[in-house]
Amino acid sequence: MCGIVGYIGARDSQHILLEGLKKLEYRGYDSAGVAIHTNAGLRLRKAKGRISELENRLKMQPLAGFAGIAHTRWATHGKPSDANSHPHTDNDMKISVVHNGIIENHLQLKEDLEQHGYRFVSETDTEVISHLIAHHYEGDLAATVRHAVGKIRGAYAIAVLSEHEPDKLVAVRWASPLIIGVGDGENFIGSDIPAILEHTRDVYILNDGEMAVLTCDGVELMTLEGNFIAKQLLRIDWDLMRAEKNGFDTFMLKEIHEQPRAYQDTMRGRINAGQEIVLPDIALTSAEVRQLKHIHLIACGTAYHAALIGKTVIERLTRIPVEVDLASEYRYRMPVIGENTLVIAVSQSGETADTLAAMRQAKYWGARVMAITNVIGSSVAREADDVLFTLAGPEIAVASTKAYSSQLIAFYLLGLYMAQSLKTLDDTAIAGLIAMLEKLPLQLVSMLRNMNPIRQVAERIAENDHLFFIGRGLDCSLAMEASLKLKEISYIHSEAYAAGELKHGSLALIEENTPVIALATQEELLEKTASNIKEVKARGAYVIALALEGCTGLEKVADQVIYVPRTHPLLTPALAVVPLQMLAYYAASFRGNDVDKPRNLAKSVTVE
Amino acid sequence: MCGIVGYIGARDSQHILLEGLKKLEYRGYDSAGVAIHTNAGLRLRKAKGRISELENRLKMQPLAGFAGIAHTRWATHGKPSDANSHPHTDNDMKISVVHNGIIENHLQLKEDLEQHGYRFVSETDTEVISHLIAHHYEGDLAATVRHAVGKIRGAYAIAVLSEHEPDKLVAVRWASPLIIGVGDGENFIGSDIPAILEHTRDVYILNDGEMAVLTCDGVELMTLEGNFIAKQLLRIDWDLMRAEKNGFDTFMLKEIHEQPRAYQDTMRGRINAGQEIVLPDIALTSAEVRQLKHIHLIACGTAYHAALIGKTVIERLTRIPVEVDLASEYRYRMPVIGENTLVIAVSQSGETADTLAAMRQAKYWGARVMAITNVIGSSVAREADDVLFTLAGPEIAVASTKAYSSQLIAFYLLGLYMAQSLKTLDDTAIAGLIAMLEKLPLQLVSMLRNMNPIRQVAERIAENDHLFFIGRGLDCSLAMEASLKLKEISYIHSEAYAAGELKHGSLALIEENTPVIALATQEELLEKTASNIKEVKARGAYVIALALEGCTGLEKVADQVIYVPRTHPLLTPALAVVPLQMLAYYAASFRGNDVDKPRNLAKSVTVE
Repeated sequence: MCGIVGYIGARDSQHILLEGLKKLEYRGYDSAGVAIHTNAGLRLRKAKGRISELENRLKMQPLAGFAGIAHTRWATHGKPSDANSHPHTDNDMKISVVHNGIIENHLQLKEDLEQHGYRFVSETDTEVISHLIAHHYEGDLAATVRHAVGKIRGAYAIAVLSEHEPDKLVAVRWASPLIIGVGDGENFIGSDIPAILEHTRDVYILNDGEMAVLTCDGVELMTLEGNFIAKQLLRIDWDLMRAEKNGFDTFMLKEIHEQPRAYQDTMRGRINAGQEIVLPDIALTSAEVRQLKHIHLIACGTAYHAALIGKTVIERLTRIPVEVDLASEYRYRMPVIGENTLVIAVSQSGETADTLAAMRQAKYWGARVMAITNVIGSSVAREADDVLFTLAGPEIAVASTKAYSSQLIAFYLLGLYMAQSLKTLDDTAIAGLIAMLEKLPLQLVSMLRNMNPIRQVAERIAENDHLFFIGRGLDCSLAMEASLKLKEISYIHSEAYAAGELKHGSLALIEENTPVIALATQEELLEKTASNIKEVKARGAYVIALALEGCTGLEKVADQVIYVPRTHPLLTPALAVVPLQMLAYYAASFRGNDVDKPRNLAKSVTVE
Repeated sequence: MCGIVGYIGARDSQHILLEGLKKLEYRGYDSAGVAIHTNAGLRLRKAKGRISELENRLKMQPLAGFAGIAHTRWATHGKPSDANSHPHTDNDMKISVVHNGIIENHLQLKEDLEQHGYRFVSETDTEVISHLIAHHYEGDLAATVRHAVGKIRGAYAIAVLSEHEPDKLVAVRWASPLIIGVGDGENFIGSDIPAILEHTRDVYILNDGEMAVLTCDGVELMTLEGNFIAKQLLRIDWDLMRAEKNGFDTFMLKEIHEQPRAYQDTMRGRINAGQEIVLPDIALTSAEVRQLKHIHLIACGTAYHAALIGKTVIERLTRIPVEVDLASEYRYRMPVIGENTLVIAVSQSGETADTLAAMRQAKYWGARVMAITNVIGSSVAREADDVLFTLAGPEIAVASTKAYSSQLIAFYLLGLYMAQSLKTLDDTAIAGLIAMLEKLPLQLVSMLRNMNPIRQVAERIAENDHLFFIGRGLDCSLAMEASLKLKEISYIHSEAYAAGELKHGSLALIEENTPVIALATQEELLEKTASNIKEVKARGAYVIALALEGCTGLEKVADQVIYVPRTHPLLTPALAVVPLQMLAYYAASFRGNDVDKPRNLAKSVTVE
């Protein structure tokens, strides 16, 4: 998720834009840039790397002017580079655009525009917007932007500055946040409140399909149909810390709530008319998929747990045998790699030292390597033969939430893509799964509205020092992630077990009131798991079960039941994970821990 | 391990023999039998099943007489059945023999004897002894027994009763325990002290290569060369409970100390002249081994941890990819099974419900199934296409020790057998590994003599509620078993981690003085593990390392180092497991727990 700042007013816009960008720095980015309307016309400065790089360039070659737009980029299309940094312009340097989000149909638009003679200088999807506006401009910037975005499919928050009408900024929002700050003789655009909080606390929050035209003296709000609208000015009384977290208490909580969005972004442009998966970023052809004999998944920590689910998903959908390895173990265990072995490395940061080393070792042994990562331009992404990006946006909290669940989405997409190639599923089955996949974000939104039951569970268990998660099948893999999450931030010693395995030893640890969280969302295994619940109940455990909506039978055996909406069984973990993340979150909060920065841990583990 | 009782004296031998067998009942058995010299000559009663079966037969058809031998059998050659029960006799019913142990060269002896016209009625190795004695008998039973055992290779404790000389019993020992009880006008033979403790506390403990000739009035002791020897009579002041445990405080401790023997028994007859592995019980041919594309190992609990080591062993030696699954998960996960998939089920009891069900499922899916089990005639053994038996003898303690380590030996044998077929190792490499394998029992014996350092570690950690094991490679698999052992009997919440993985989350649980037991017996991974030790030390952990002898470098980074003798790296777990078993044992003892019967757990888990 990139950051946007826009300014129009009497002050030095270069300074205000740079300071605004710095306030968004916490969100993560890989390059930055500004466009300012100067006396000499529209001028840009862009730099890959830290904002201080951009600042240095601006010190050497300052831009003086009273209107400008700026951007911090988190790569989604095209690697981090000066050329790919925003703002982007048209070929005449009359129009500059910054953009957050993804233009799904950018390839097709690009082709059209190229036929009209437009030259593209970047690998981004954003650049089509500036050319589109240039192509359609007929004297009214706001109308042209409206016209241009009418041709765009995807998610966007856009700010436009043009030499044609240098006294205004145009901003438009669809499925990517954007706010307008209202000052005294000056006005602001921000992708987030912190960007402008230093200058004004009066903001308009744009809704999807709304746009704003800013001048020094005022802000006009209108719909994408061009109808003016009136909107309540919102007074922000958050402090900066809170604002950075978008009103949430912690980054972790914010990121948990960003998951519906992360799912959408990760799916965007990869599902064709609800019928088929298209993965344009992946070079692995259908013919090559058909050659695959083994798949090895390598990862660490939370990503390893996502890979465990990935194994089940890929095996079920494709019948190709999949092995999952801890990256730190894979390197040294001399795995059997044949010429038809695909190795998939999973890492949020793309810089995890163990994963990177294991991946290099696999390449050395002759495997084809695919990466699933959240960071474009990361080492894992650069070195892999293929990359399937999760588009969860930067993750700040040390305990991973949206990156994990977006990795699940990536595995669903990949599994379906492979199933298409192998014809292991027919078109109807694939379309059915796709339909349920597309429903997940909305299901998540509605789940996130009612986290009170899990909060009560967390309060009940927060004082315990020991706790067990059990589950069968996908619930077992999910239990491992739930347990890790709880450990990481609450410091409760929790452990996950295959439900059928507890009796083979660790049942000895169950005492009166030991909490056992039983994941029972896989309906075909429900009866067996219910038996295991009775087993631990008989030893005095306090059992909280996670079950599918409508599956009320567990209320008889468990002390408490938390319900999860129904979807395809393979997809359930992508929903069921949310109450478990919240459980960890609440438990850590009740224990008074620093949720975002747990003791002893680092976000991206770049040592072995 | 079977049980032997012998009696000669003025009392009713039927009663004394039956009561003696009952005292050995705790050791496990699958059939029982007696031979008594009656007025009508030598008579036998035998029954598969419980001793009460035999008792019922004796009630229906009693045997009156003053000399007899009796036996409880734990099958090693031939399934449990009336015919395979001891005593065995010659064809003329003049000589009866009971035997504990294994006759390695019984097939060859049998062939010879058959050519001389002897008919065999059982599938046992024991029967050759009775025919051999009959064949060589020339008027002196003791001399004939001496002559016969001179032709035998293997391990044995034998008691012989003959109609030719009904006033005496002959007993001989080689590598299988045997004692002689001295009474007043009566004398006794026992494989263990409890069998005779009711009648006398004065015993001779026979050493290897010693034999005894018992009459009512006296006992003559001699060597296998026929030289008479004098021996100190030992006064047993143990109570019966202690005697059942062979002087050890608990069955677990006894079984830990039986491991050198279990290793020997499991290897016996399967190594040909130190050069090659022969597995006569396995039908899987070399040609079939060469067809194998995948191996799946399925097991629960401790056996699962043995299978994790088995995976590494087989993959390294054969380069066939091996997957390990919890049996309870395997059934439901729809594994990919091809026509060249071998499934190996591992279960001590051979009755583990999850393993049995998973194995049946695998057969249903078309896999060829092999079993590794400790119980001949068990369900797993009966239903598998091939069985590789561990010969650890009955395991009484709930926490498995010798069964686990014998499973490792089975995997070594199987891995080498497959490597021979595949020629993935040359003859020299195989012979080298075999030499080291054969050295393991003696190495174990010497390790078991000095467990004081680990006792001190146990005292140090016994009061902790949390503890972590870490290791890489084989040490990681071993850490999982060590952790389970500790959990099962000490109830300390311990958890095992791949050493490289701790930093990806669970490092958050390490506090000042949290014990971390770092297994670092894999020399090529030592440096990496040392880094992980420093990682936890930096967070305040108290670190106990397990390292190879001579590898003193760890003393600088760990708080304490326990040393393990050197062998081939693949074989090291079979040695390194011992201090870890003892750690669990001592820790549980310090906490005052019932080591043999931990809370909540059952020995053989016959529910899912």
